[in-house]
Amino acid sequence: MLRNLSENYENLSINTATLGYEHSLINKIDQIARAGFGGIAPWRSEVDEKNPIPVTKLIKDAGLSVTGYCRSAYFTGPDKDSRKKSIENNIIGIRTASLLGAECFIAVVGGLAKGTRNIEENRKQILEGLFSIGKIASEEGVPIALEPLHPVYASDRSLLNTIDQAIKWCDELNQTFPGTFGIAIDVYHVWWDPKLYENLMRAKSIILAFHVSDWLIPTKDPLMDRGMMGDGIIELKKIRNALEDNGYTGSVEVEIFSSNNWWKRPILETLDTCMDRLKNIC
Amino acid sequence: MLRNLSENYENLSINTATLGYEHSLINKIDQIARAGFGGIAPWRSEVDEKNPIPVTKLIKDAGLSVTGYCRSAYFTGPDKDSRKKSIENNIIGIRTASLLGAECFIAVVGGLAKGTRNIEENRKQILEGLFSIGKIASEEGVPIALEPLHPVYASDRSLLNTIDQAIKWCDELNQTFPGTFGIAIDVYHVWWDPKLYENLMRAKSIILAFHVSDWLIPTKDPLMDRGMMGDGIIELKKIRNALEDNGYTGSVEVEIFSSNNWWKRPILETLDTCMDRLKNIC
Repeated sequence: MLRNLSENYENLSINTATLGYEHSLINKIDQIARAGFGGIAPWRSEVDEKNPIPVTKLIKDAGLSVTGYCRSAYFTGPDKDSRKKSIENNIIGIRTASLLGAECFIAVVGGLAKGTRNIEENRKQILEGLFSIGKIASEEGVPIALEPLHPVYASDRSLLNTIDQAIKWCDELNQTFPGTFGIAIDVYHVWWDPKLYENLMRAKSIILAFHVSDWLIPTKDPLMDRGMMGDGIIELKKIRNALEDNGYTGSVEVEIFSSNNWWKRPILETLDTCMDRLKNIC
Repeated sequence: MLRNLSENYENLSINTATLGYEHSLINKIDQIARAGFGGIAPWRSEVDEKNPIPVTKLIKDAGLSVTGYCRSAYFTGPDKDSRKKSIENNIIGIRTASLLGAECFIAVVGGLAKGTRNIEENRKQILEGLFSIGKIASEEGVPIALEPLHPVYASDRSLLNTIDQAIKWCDELNQTFPGTFGIAIDVYHVWWDPKLYENLMRAKSIILAFHVSDWLIPTKDPLMDRGMMGDGIIELKKIRNALEDNGYTGSVEVEIFSSNNWWKRPILETLDTCMDRLKNIC
């Protein structure tokens, strides 16, 4: 049964990337809460990971839940040292996510390591990296949400590109770390998949996050020209319906990278538009 | 067994798009043959489809085979009339392909019809359209090569996005039109697929064409910034090896859309570079 988002504000969340990077996190927290949202998903660059207590308090005092913490360092790297550093960095991220009370730590796993072409080897490095953070994630009680990214980002951001692939990795990882790994479904990355609904069904018990935005025609830049929900061609309601039919009760988080449009507008306009579209389009 | 391309020039083909659209087809035919290639894949816009005999003769006299004819009109459309016109257009394309002696007619199937979001309905239209051209393709003896396009083109160019999906459609179509439908594998579109090698194996009996280019990092424009083989990150030899291990003996066709780089260079430079890379990189 599709939830009525107009009656479930606590489930509506804003990924802070949606508001660009010019404003402080403090300002964002305040405005997101005032605009009526129930959740926030901050980025690591916005948080002082050496002392996340003040931010944690601010978010809590604003009445917001943390629907996700963005995001892992890439697990691929040209040598063992760089991959080890990435693991260490990710452990700090997981500890911070735990302090923030984040519902999950988002894993964007990385593309081909610089100078390499061997996809199989790079994917192996990613899986090894994920195994390396399983114990700490399990101990901290922070599930890792593997986010399959659109294949347009395969070379430089993520060699995890389909829900099918994410299901397989989660199956393998959860054999060692039960209940620790799940999947973040971002409509922007998966809307095109011929097996979308079949795989949403297969993934139903491990979906940890649901991100919305829209795919514009034309898309001027695949990274920085995401659209506001309703301005593109993604069947948002149909996808959410499938998720919720399968039992998903988590947040609906807006994540829009839009350097030339939404990031240039006043925060309040963006937030009000997000709220309106969530209620009427998603 | 990987063929030695230095000894198999007859298998090396140039898709005329690689040379941009400023030169005449006559000029391209001449230079492609002089540069030592054995095949050519022309575009419909370059051929007078009301009278393709002179071009056919030119290509034949140059000693070139036609490794593919590019390409179908999109099968999706906002109404029945537009889809009917597209079928009629495609029938002309198939007849021309037959006269040219083309080894296949390339089907780029179309994205979402303008103003629509319903992927399932649009994909249904595509399959219906393909069924509508099966008879004529079968009669003319021109196999239709379904080309899965990279998901970055799903919204506006092709809702056929994986080899898996192409296999399913071919299975369905060939039940009615045995041996008429197959698949064009273009490395640019499929290199990222986690199931690439598994699906190349499954598709082995119906692979009609093999296109090469490279994926650049960064890619400035997903449509017009394809790279020359060796300049990007695609494992070209590994993919060709898989195809040939599975029994592929057809052409290796270079198809590079590169409006700001290769299209600006002299034809001969591009052709010589293609030849060199085919022999040493692919």
